[in-house]
Parts: sequence; C-alpha cells; structure tokens
Amino acid sequence: MSATWGNRFKITLFGESHGAAIGVVIDGVPAGIKLDVLAIERDMLRRSAKGKEGIATARREEDKAEIVSGYFNGYTTGMPLTAVIRNGDTRSADYARTASLMRPGHSDYGYYVKSGGFNDYRGGGSSSGRLTAPMVFAGAVAKQILAAKGVKVGAHILSVADVRDSSFDTIAPQLDEVDANGMLDSGLWKDIKSRVEAAAADGDSVGGVIECAVCGLKAGVGEPLLDSVESAIAHMMFSVPAVKGIQFGLGYAMCGMMGSEVNDSFYYDGDDVATRTNNNGGVLGGITTGMPVIFNVAIKPTASIFKAQDTIDVSNERDARLELRGRHDPCIVLRAVPVIEAAAAIAICDLTV
Amino acid sequence: MSATWGNRFKITLFGESHGAAIGVVIDGVPAGIKLDVLAIERDMLRRSAKGKEGIATARREEDKAEIVSGYFNGYTTGMPLTAVIRNGDTRSADYARTASLMRPGHSDYGYYVKSGGFNDYRGGGSSSGRLTAPMVFAGAVAKQILAAKGVKVGAHILSVADVRDSSFDTIAPQLDEVDANGMLDSGLWKDIKSRVEAAAADGDSVGGVIECAVCGLKAGVGEPLLDSVESAIAHMMFSVPAVKGIQFGLGYAMCGMMGSEVNDSFYYDGDDVATRTNNNGGVLGGITTGMPVIFNVAIKPTASIFKAQDTIDVSNERDARLELRGRHDPCIVLRAVPVIEAAAAIAICDLTV
Amino acid sequence: MSATWGNRFKITLFGESHGAAIGVVIDGVPAGIKLDVLAIERDMLRRSAKGKEGIATARREEDKAEIVSGYFNGYTTGMPLTAVIRNGDTRSADYARTASLMRPGHSDYGYYVKSGGFNDYRGGGSSSGRLTAPMVFAGAVAKQILAAKGVKVGAHILSVADVRDSSFDTIAPQLDEVDANGMLDSGLWKDIKSRVEAAAADGDSVGGVIECAVCGLKAGVGEPLLDSVESAIAHMMFSVPAVKGIQFGLGYAMCGMMGSEVNDSFYYDGDDVATRTNNNGGVLGGITTGMPVIFNVAIKPTASIFKAQDTIDVSNERDARLELRGRHDPCIVLRAVPVIEAAAAIAICDLTV
Amino acid sequence: MSATWGNRFKITLFGESHGAAIGVVIDGVPAGIKLDVLAIERDMLRRSAKGKEGIATARREEDKAEIVSGYFNGYTTGMPLTAVIRNGDTRSADYARTASLMRPGHSDYGYYVKSGGFNDYRGGGSSSGRLTAPMVFAGAVAKQILAAKGVKVGAHILSVADVRDSSFDTIAPQLDEVDANGMLDSGLWKDIKSRVEAAAADGDSVGGVIECAVCGLKAGVGEPLLDSVESAIAHMMFSVPAVKGIQFGLGYAMCGMMGSEVNDSFYYDGDDVATRTNNNGGVLGGITTGMPVIFNVAIKPTASIFKAQDTIDVSNERDARLELRGRHDPCIVLRAVPVIEAAAAIAICDLTV
Repeated sequence: MSATWGNRFKITLFGESHGAAIGVVIDGVPAGIKLDVLAIERDMLRRSAKGKEGIATARREEDKAEIVSGYFNGYTTGMPLTAVIRNGDTRSADYARTASLMRPGHSDYGYYVKSGGFNDYRGGGSSSGRLTAPMVFAGAVAKQILAAKGVKVGAHILSVADVRDSSFDTIAPQLDEVDANGMLDSGLWKDIKSRVEAAAADGDSVGGVIECAVCGLKAGVGEPLLDSVESAIAHMMFSVPAVKGIQFGLGYAMCGMMGSEVNDSFYYDGDDVATRTNNNGGVLGGITTGMPVIFNVAIKPTASIFKAQDTIDVSNERDARLELRGRHDPCIVLRAVPVIEAAAAIAICDLTV
Repeated sequence: MSATWGNRFKITLFGESHGAAIGVVIDGVPAGIKLDVLAIERDMLRRSAKGKEGIATARREEDKAEIVSGYFNGYTTGMPLTAVIRNGDTRSADYARTASLMRPGHSDYGYYVKSGGFNDYRGGGSSSGRLTAPMVFAGAVAKQILAAKGVKVGAHILSVADVRDSSFDTIAPQLDEVDANGMLDSGLWKDIKSRVEAAAADGDSVGGVIECAVCGLKAGVGEPLLDSVESAIAHMMFSVPAVKGIQFGLGYAMCGMMGSEVNDSFYYDGDDVATRTNNNGGVLGGITTGMPVIFNVAIKPTASIFKAQDTIDVSNERDARLELRGRHDPCIVLRAVPVIEAAAAIAICDLTV
Repeated sequence: MSATWGNRFKITLFGESHGAAIGVVIDGVPAGIKLDVLAIERDMLRRSAKGKEGIATARREEDKAEIVSGYFNGYTTGMPLTAVIRNGDTRSADYARTASLMRPGHSDYGYYVKSGGFNDYRGGGSSSGRLTAPMVFAGAVAKQILAAKGVKVGAHILSVADVRDSSFDTIAPQLDEVDANGMLDSGLWKDIKSRVEAAAADGDSVGGVIECAVCGLKAGVGEPLLDSVESAIAHMMFSVPAVKGIQFGLGYAMCGMMGSEVNDSFYYDGDDVATRTNNNGGVLGGITTGMPVIFNVAIKPTASIFKAQDTIDVSNERDARLELRGRHDPCIVLRAVPVIEAAAAIAICDLTV
Repeated sequence: MSATWGNRFKITLFGESHGAAIGVVIDGVPAGIKLDVLAIERDMLRRSAKGKEGIATARREEDKAEIVSGYFNGYTTGMPLTAVIRNGDTRSADYARTASLMRPGHSDYGYYVKSGGFNDYRGGGSSSGRLTAPMVFAGAVAKQILAAKGVKVGAHILSVADVRDSSFDTIAPQLDEVDANGMLDSGLWKDIKSRVEAAAADGDSVGGVIECAVCGLKAGVGEPLLDSVESAIAHMMFSVPAVKGIQFGLGYAMCGMMGSEVNDSFYYDGDDVATRTNNNGGVLGGITTGMPVIFNVAIKPTASIFKAQDTIDVSNERDARLELRGRHDPCIVLRAVPVIEAAAAIAICDLTV
C-alpha cells in the first residue's frame, strides 16, 4: 500500500500536483496538544518557493493548509488530524502538450505503464514534489510532539554541486546555528547560489546532500528485526522525491575503516551514558544509543531541465525529442531541508508517540 | 511493530542467537509452488560459516530449516509457510561473563535500556546476525516466486576494506558471472582474504560494500508516495545488521553531477522501452522503469573485535574495560551476499506477488 | 489505529460532526475505472435525511462529496481517491449548552476520558453517524469495482421495533425487489413509519435489524485464521454507529439445531458447485462457498432521545438531569441501509480487489 | 492478510491440523513480565480433550507448547514471544480416503478452490479447530498482561442445544463462580452432557452460546471510526472456527426496545462514574464506558458428523455420498470457553498494551 505509513503516528497522503487539493490525514496525534499553527506555517513557508526568486520555481503556491478535523478550540482532540491544501496557479496546459512524451528522470513512464495510461500526468501527479507540502505539515506536527519530549530535529545543506558546508558535530549537532538558507557556514551560500544560477542559466540542474540530526532521543528507541530506527527513517526518506541514497553516521566511509576505529566507546558522563565518538550516528543494531541520530541523504539534480532530451512518445510508440517548458527548481536541495526534517520527525514520532 | 514486515508477502521473524530456535513465518506465499528445497539449502549454506575457515566464525551452526507449515506433498498450500531452525553449538557461557559490559558497536546498551534489563544479552539476542538465517530462508522462497516471473536477484562483493571489485554493468548486470566467493573479478579474492586475515590476526575487523541487482522487473512496480521500491528495499536492508548506508544507481555521485548528465534517455528497443543509461538504478519517482534495479549497501566492520575496548559496566554503573572472547566473523561482508539478495527478494516479492 | 482499515482496498476516514469537513481517502482503487458519479450521489442521497421528513433529522446536510484526488478525465488513476464533504447547517450551540452532560447511550463519556476532556463533543465528534457519509462514498466506489466482477451487494430493513419484513431467499436473494424505502414487503412500510412516528411523538426512539446479501462471490474468498470473510465484514459493521450484533446465515438459531440440520449439502448444478441450503450464509471456515453471503445486523434504538434522562455533569462531578434538544433521527435503521451495504462492499472489496 | 492480527499486541498464527507443528508468534509483549507458565498450561489443558471422554474427540493431543523465543530466565524480553506445538497422534489416513469429498459445513471446498487443489485437506488444514491451541497460548499471555492492570476476562457456557445457563450479572459478572465445566449453574451440566451424548450417540452434533465478560477496563478504551472495541473483539471472535454470531450487551433484544429502555444512565458512585444498567455491554460509540464489556457468541453445531451426507467428489466432478470416520467433538462449545476468553484477551490487549 502506498498512501499510508506508520504504526502509531500514521500518515495518509493524498493528492496530485494539478488536482483540486492535496493533503494528509494524521492518525495517532495525542489529544490535548496546543498546536502552534504559526510554527507549522513557518515550515510550510520554508518549503515554498516564496522569496527564492531565481533559484526556485516561479509557481506561486499558496500552500495554505486548512485543518478540517482533529482540532478543536486550539487543541488536538486525539482524532485524525486532517489538513487540506487547495492547489492553485496550476498551468496544466504546459503539460498537455507533452503528455505522451515521457520525461527522462521522472516517473512518467512507470506510471503510464502502472496505470494503463490512466495516470494524471500533469506535473508528475502524485509523485510530484508538491506532495511534500502535506508531508511538511505532518512533520511540523510531529516536531511539536517531539519537542514536548525534549527531542529536536534539524537539517542543513551539506553540499550542492561541488560546494560543501561543514558537517554537524556528531556529539552536539549545532541545530541552532543553521541559518535561514539552511547553511551552517553562511558564507558559502553565495557559492551555492551561483552554482544553482549557473545551472539554471544553462537550462540544467544540480543536486546535493542534506544532513539531518535528531537530538534528545533516549536510548532504546526503535524496534529490532524489521522496524529499526534506520529502516523507519530510510523508508520515509525514500518517499521524498529525488532522494537516491542515505547513510547513517560515517556511513560508506566506515567500509574502509577498521572495527577498532568505528566502534564508539561508552562511558559514564556523570549519571548519563554517552559515547566518546558517534561514528555510528546514534544507532546500533537498529535502536538508539542515546546519542544524536545523524544521517545524510543524497538528492539528485532536478529531473526537469530545459535542455532538449531524447525520449519516447508513447502515443505513436516512436523515439522523440523533448523540450520542457514550465516552471521548475534548478536545485531541489534548497527547498528540501524542511522536507527532510519533516520526514525524519514523522519516522521518529511513529516510534516514540 | 518489529517482527512483521510486508503487505502481500509478509514475513514474521522470531528468535534469539542463543535461544531454543529461530525462524520465520511467511504469509502470502501463493499456493501450488513446487519448492526447490535444495536451492533453499544452498542459500542457507552460502550464508553459513561452513568452508570459510579463518575468515568466518568457528561457531558450527547447522542451520537446518524445518518447514512446519504451509507445505504439503512438495507444494506450497497458500497458508503461512513456517520454517523453524533449532539453535545449536551455543556457548552461552562466553556471554555470561560479560553480560553487564556493553559491547561497543553493538545494540547491548540500547536493549538493556529498552527492556529494563530483561533482554537476552547472549550473542546480541534478536539483533544477532543469526537472525539473517530465517531471512535467507524467506528470501530463497521469494527468489523462487520471482524466478517464475522472470525476475532474478543477485549480489556480489563490491569492496572489502580498500579492495574494490568491478561494478555490475548497469544495463545488463552480470548476475551469472558472480563466483562462489561472491566476486565478479575472481582474482581479487586473495587480496580480500588477506585483508580479512590481517584484520583477524590483529583482533580487528573490516567492512565493505555489497552491490545488488534485480533484473527482469517490468516498469510500474512500486507504490507512489509512501511505499516506493526504494523505500521497501531500504526498509529491508536496514533490517540487516551492520548495514549503515544504501544508494540507488549512481547514488551519492549524482549529487555532484548535472541533471543533463544523470537523466536516462528513453528509447524504443524494438517494441520494448529501455533507457540508454541507467544512472538512476532502474527506479524513478519510486517506481521501476523496466531497467535493472541496482543499488549497493555499506556494511560496517564487525563490531565484535578482540582488541581491548573502553566501555561501561551497567551492574555497578562504572566505566570498564572489555576484552571479548567468543567466535566472531572478522568481516561480515563475506557471508552477507545471500542475505542482501534475500532482503531484496523479500522487498520485491512484497510489491509484486 | 482507528482511522484506517483494510489491506488492499484501504480506507482512511476523517472528520467530526461539527468540524469543517469530513471525508475519506481510499487507497487501492484500481486505475482506469470509469466512475459512475451519479450512482455514488444516489447512495449518498439514500443515506441523507432528504425526503424523510418526520422520520429523520431535520438537519439539512448537503453531503456534496468533492473528489479531490485519484480521479482524472472521468477515470480513476490508481492513486488515492479522496472525497471531501464540507459540513453545513451545524447548530453547534445546541451542544455547547450540554457539553459537560454525558449523554446516555452515547460515547461522550468514553471520549471525555480518552481525550482528557479535549474531545470535540459537538454532535458526538468523530463517533457521529455523520461519518457514515464518507463511508457510503467509499462503499459506492467499492460497489462499482465489485459490480464489474459480477458481485452485487444489497440490504433491506428486516425489522423495526416489532414489525418484521420477509427475509432474503438464502439461495437467490431478491436484491432487485428491495423498494425505495428499503423493504422487500412494501406493504409493511406504513407500519414501520407509524412505529417510528409514535416513538418520535413520545420523544423516544426505536431500533431494528438490517439484512444484507453479497451475491456473485466465487468460492475461496477470505483469508483463513485471522482475516476471515466474517471477521472482515464484522469489523466493518461494528464501525457503523449503533450496530450491536451480527449473525451470518441462521446465526444464533443454529445454536439450537443439530449438525445434520445446519450442514449445507454440496451438489453439482451442471458444471457449477452449489449447496442445496445456505444455512451458513455462504461462509464456511471463514471463506466463501460460492453461495450468497448473508448476514444481518442489530441496530439499537437511537441514543438521542428527548425524554429527560439521569446522567452526570463532569464539570462539577455531580449527578444531573439531561433534556436533549437538537435534531435527531428517531430510528437510525431507516437511513442505515446504504451504510450497511457500503460497509459490506468495503470489506468484500478489500478481500477481492 | 491472514496470519497476522493486531497493531500493538500482534499475533501471527501458523500450522495445520496434521502438519509437523502449529504455533504463534506474539509481537508486542512488554519486557519484564514473569510468565506464569503453569497458568498458560492450565488454559491449554482446559481447551484440550483430556478428561472429557465421551463428549470430546478421542484424539490425544499433547498440546505441549515450547517457548522458543522472547523468554529468558523466567521473564519476557520484549522480543517476539514464540510458542511451537508439535502435532501428534495424527491419523492422516482417515482423511486420505475422503480427500476429494468436500465435507459439508467445512471449508474444504473453499480451500480447494482457493488453493487450486493444493490445500492440506487433512483435518481441515489451517482452518482446523486445532489452531485454537496457539490462540489459547497467546490469550493466556494476554490475560497475564491484563491481570497486572486489574483487567480480568472470563467466559461461561450460556447454552447448549435447548439447555440455558444463567447470564452474567451485567454490573458485576460472576467470573469467579464459573465452575470447571464452564457453568454458572453447575446443576445444568448433567443436562448439557446428556444432550451432547445423545447427539454423539446419533452420530450428530449440537451447538450453543458462550458468554464472555471483560472486567476492570477503564473508560476510553477502543479506537473510534474503524477500530472500535466491538470491531476488535468481533474480528477475533470470527477467527474462531464455528462462531457464526456475536452480540454486545442486550444485542438483538435491543432492536425491539425503546431508546429510553436501553440507554444506560450515568451516575457518580462516590468518585467513580458508573451506569445503573449495562444494556450496552460496556461499550458506547465503540469505546468502553468503564462498565464490564459483555458479549456472547453463537457457536454452530460441529460440522463433522457421522451421519451419511450428500456432497460432491471433486476428483470426478460428480455428486457423492460421504460417511465420515475419525474423531470429532460432538459439541465444540464445551471446549471453546478458554478459546473465547483467549480471543477476547488478545483483542483487549491489543487495544490497551
């Protein structure tokens, strides 16, 4: 099944990029939480294209989430919490022209086959990045539930193209030092911006890496065997369009190291247990150690580019040439920071609520 | 929940390393499949330590899987297929000595907290690599179901320490060219063996990368939104102990490339649709393109090493020094090839059965 | 979890009686189904109070279901199909007055405790009969999917108070003979109407029984062990407010009979297999026999009555006296026929889609 | 899916009547519970045929449950708790003779179609009453978890054929007064025994009703919408072979009563809230009121009778005549009391653990 995920904090997503509305039903929100609606809107705004002229799509999405259930007199009721976001500023005509041309790098062809040609091809339908809006809504709710337990989730841009920001300190991730652009080292933003603008000017796109940390989790979170913390987080991350990889702690770098180098030694820090290093990203055997959970995800360059590309036309079953128009982000990474945070918060909330 | 995974091909794992038995219940096996029991045993044997003297644990595990349900007169009945594997050659005493010492790199401390001290600490309990035996059983069944549909799953050792094998051809992965050791380039085996033996001699361990390919899948497999092919595969992979990362197609390498470089162009290969490159590893927008699904996973160095390590003793809440004894693989990678294949087969079977 | 049900045809309900909107997300609708929207609206209308003056609530609910996703150019896309129904004509003030008085026969007290007092008490919140509107929407979609396979679902009023309609023929249920009021024997309607009006005139309410049949199911539907046809149907039925019992085939009557009386003999009806009687209601050992699936459900008298009742006031923790105002059905049975059909269609669709 | 049920206390059943073993995996058992193994064995013994000569099958089932995981040093570990029960004293030859004759009242034909003829027909395979043994095991564990919270589950025989025992007091069910035969009124046992023996002497069978009460549940248990207490209990009950109906509280009797008669008035009993009557069986709007949850289930006469019956032979697709041999209970009700308790305990545990 596709639209629902989770056992205890269960989210059900719905909608398509150019349909009437998108949204999310969240089942498992405890009753009596005073929702900070402004904080939700702030996350929604971080994800939106507003104020990101030149480096994000020109589509003006209002992303106004209406809470239609589960919320009464300012508090959650414990019943399904539902947000509906009407779609607007859709230029579906941009897509009608190329409906039968399968966009390289997109799911068009897969859906065409899967649905027998009945898919809503406009803007990628349900596989559109637009569906990350309700995911951010759910994540913002999850963050508030986690925050009440002292758990904090934060992400930043680790790299775009060849520009690489600092990494989080693995023992004490600097969540509060991430700036409005999603950078630890603010001085690098102009380099990133120039890489993105250069790609855009060339009708091309770039990718990057986002690093995320979850701080304040106690040891013992996660289920053994088939629902590890890593499985839950990875499951949610690969639900975010364009994510192509994930690694926890030192990740792939550990493959070239010795066990004695990567094992994290436990010690008593007063009454608390800690590890002197955190090479394993706060997870051992699938459950938390009590150290920050740290991972990063690879985000590929935006598939929608304006250079002419070879592809197929399924209407006449011939090879074809595609020149995309429309409005697209030249680099998804820049807007994906709150999405990665949201996906992480949802996964962690499901394991701890 | 932890012990059960899947929607259509649902597996439930049970058991601990030093308990009476481990096993798996598989729900969703179609009726009427003539099981090739020898093929299952072959995969079980590939995972076992037999014939791997010097580079694998000396624990002699029989790994004899008794099928106790769902199988009648040589065929599956469509009812839950259950395999029970008795544990043997357990030297639990090795663990009693260090029960209160939390092994670095292991889940001991997480479980200790999670269970309030009631965990079966012997050999890591349910988080032991031993649980990969029933996973391989389930994967072997999944492979047979997939094979009947023309889908084939294969993996090989991509690297151990600094030794790197060739990669699969992304258009036509050479599944049939993987040798008995799990190598494409058989000549590299002696280098790998020497790295592992050197680590073992030093009481240390090494990690590596396993690459896996699923060939023969049609386009359109996978669920959008929250159950993508990548989510399903990653979920299962992070259920395999010691896996710390996964990437599909070019993965992290795509982050430094342009969209025009990584988009795979579609074309008509006769009546079939194919892509000229397969940088995206056969998955776009979470569903298959019809090209081979290709990914690799990072496996960290074995956490059990024989060098003395700093840790804590939870019995007196003091820092302590741990010198492990017992029998441990100096490199999990070597035995993990069939496990990765099994985990992939289970994930794909769940999406296609 | 509460809001989501099903494995293959998965529904997620949301909303409260007096919130902004109610609705349903259906996951698992096959792509390419040409929805008969008028047929859906007909079922919605059957459930609504329209044209039932005197025997149904005076609340004028439009029940206009807007399909916001999963539907494109007249066909389903295979993506989550979502309907949103705005609430209207809510007189919430009716409820504010009695917010702290726990209505006997209602879930008010249970929810008050469950939510720590944060429940949306207006009109029963999520446990309101109003939530049967999106259930009917989902059921209407399920019916169309089933109809395409030759499966038909129908229900009728078996009894109200002491008035009892004929039963379905168990071999060939007369689905087409049910009249617009939900009766097989139309002549009894005036008796039923008079019982309901008499109860209403007295500020009281009456209950009854609805019988339902599912025709055209092949043998072999249902899962053994823990997801029998009976489990699935019963699970959905007890999600309908006011249902207090269910029995399949002869049900409780079988308890006083001999095995030789209730066993249904198989025979070959040409090439088809049938049973000469259908005492077991088309289900044996949890799976279908190929005969019509027949069951009935007990619906209690409406809990909302206008007679003064003893209860408690949770605001001052004292006993109290409650005189309800507002608009309520004196007999839920009359509007529940399409709801029972919907719940049955959803359950069967989940097992067969 | 069939073999797994539950969200938080998840059980997975496996096995067939004449296979090597049957069993259950329980996922969600809290760590640190000191299992009373003797109490589990007592429930297993109540279900078994031992000491019930003349009124139960002569099959000598040992029903020795071996706990193979999740249990360490006398306490649960929080990991999947697995019990394996080897089958013994199977006389499979009894079934080979009639393999192609579909037994009336049994699931043989349904499974034959469902599995394409690959079902394990011996003794009904997975739909055998034998599978209630692992269910009783899981229920016994659930009871211990519930007992620690002050929740007690008990059942008794309400009727067999035309003999009817007293009902539970709905305010204070007499769980402690149920005798070893499962009767409140011990004096009626001889009548029940004589009805069963008479049926057996005639090669026939009888059915009956079992009443069950769950005491000590607080208000607010159960999920609204699609996972009500009644849905959960009913779901589990219809997983018990031969159950054909269920009703909560007054059930069907409420259909002929007025709302003012069946509504239960709340009052303050000191600081506690109670209802003066409990016509609704402790559940309103799908969640508990804090009063005892009371329901009863209809159990049909044993389908296996020794009278000759008409049926079909699928091997030659002809009508046939069946004379059963073998060993069968002439009345399942007598051994089903602990099974109904177990199914109820599992359902309640899933909602409260």
